[in-house]
Amino acid sequence: MTHEDSGPSPSVSLGPDASRRSDRARRAILVATRDLVADVGYSRLTIEGIAATAGVGKQTIYRWWRSKAAVLFDAILDAHSHEGSVALPNTGDLETDLRLLLRGTVAALTDPSNDRLQRAIIAEIQTDSSIADELVRRLLRPQFDACAARIAVGVQSGQVDESVDTDLAVELLFGPIFHRWLLRTGELNDVFADNVLDKVLTGLRPR
Amino acid sequence: MTHEDSGPSPSVSLGPDASRRSDRARRAILVATRDLVADVGYSRLTIEGIAATAGVGKQTIYRWWRSKAAVLFDAILDAHSHEGSVALPNTGDLETDLRLLLRGTVAALTDPSNDRLQRAIIAEIQTDSSIADELVRRLLRPQFDACAARIAVGVQSGQVDESVDTDLAVELLFGPIFHRWLLRTGELNDVFADNVLDKVLTGLRPR
Repeated sequence: MTHEDSGPSPSVSLGPDASRRSDRARRAILVATRDLVADVGYSRLTIEGIAATAGVGKQTIYRWWRSKAAVLFDAILDAHSHEGSVALPNTGDLETDLRLLLRGTVAALTDPSNDRLQRAIIAEIQTDSSIADELVRRLLRPQFDACAARIAVGVQSGQVDESVDTDLAVELLFGPIFHRWLLRTGELNDVFADNVLDKVLTGLRPR
Repeated sequence: MTHEDSGPSPSVSLGPDASRRSDRARRAILVATRDLVADVGYSRLTIEGIAATAGVGKQTIYRWWRSKAAVLFDAILDAHSHEGSVALPNTGDLETDLRLLLRGTVAALTDPSNDRLQRAIIAEIQTDSSIADELVRRLLRPQFDACAARIAVGVQSGQVDESVDTDLAVELLFGPIFHRWLLRTGELNDVFADNVLDKVLTGLRPR
């Protein structure tokens, strides 16, 4: 067993050099995966191709990930550095803060360099519900919870009716944005995001 | 060329028998496709399998459809008999009518016998935007337009503010429903649909 094959979480018996090499190999694999999906698309992505681009052996990849979809998923998570520590701005004005959030979501979804990667994972979760659960738990839920927490502050400050379920409010905001992106029903831009926000907030105001 | 290979829209030179045979073959192919996707899943669906199940030659399928995805898509359209002639109930009460519509959508999306078929097409449109365009144009748009038309009647009867963009209102209603289904963020049921409707309608009421 070579050092490169020791896995992303090396045991304590490995020295610092082996651990660094292992981290480097892992990063190279994830970057190669993102680059290849952007270049050739997910359907033509192969473990062989990732290994060649990353400069590692195929077995290194098979040892750390159970499938092409699993590598893809970690490559996406790795690209989202905010994972696990999401916090929204709090300018004191709920509409301003949510506008920033929704426009940021629109920008991320419509970024051409991420398009194939993001759509590949959406396609994948339609048939693999364990990947879906992980996507929700590790990537989406932290963002939704941060949004819900910001809305809860809005309830306290009297900008949102106290009867509002903050989790529902989050889906009212994100739902139409993802709907347009996922089903390709129309152009997804800031104007659309602002209009969604305006109508949803009207429905949430104190009665 | 045999009669069975003449295509779903036979030319006038074919007699009524050939036309009937052609229609029967087409229907058998679409039913076989739906059954096979429900049984084995889209990824294991093959043109050979469809041909065998439908009792037609493989070449018949290749002559009428350019890909597995194209057959799948027609199989889904064929299962939606309301295509092209969608009309919403009009009881006079907008909330009642929209509740029926949203609950119907929830029922259709969560129907176990349709789950694999519907998710297969969602996965497919992530990489094939021509199929996406067709899905929107032939299946989703007629439903969205019917919903928008019902909301427009609500504007006239004073139940919805006259400033409301009816197309936006449709995406506010359907967005969270599809969001929950597509991203598997939580349980999709009537309670969720009713809550979405309540908040969205509050945001649309005359000010």
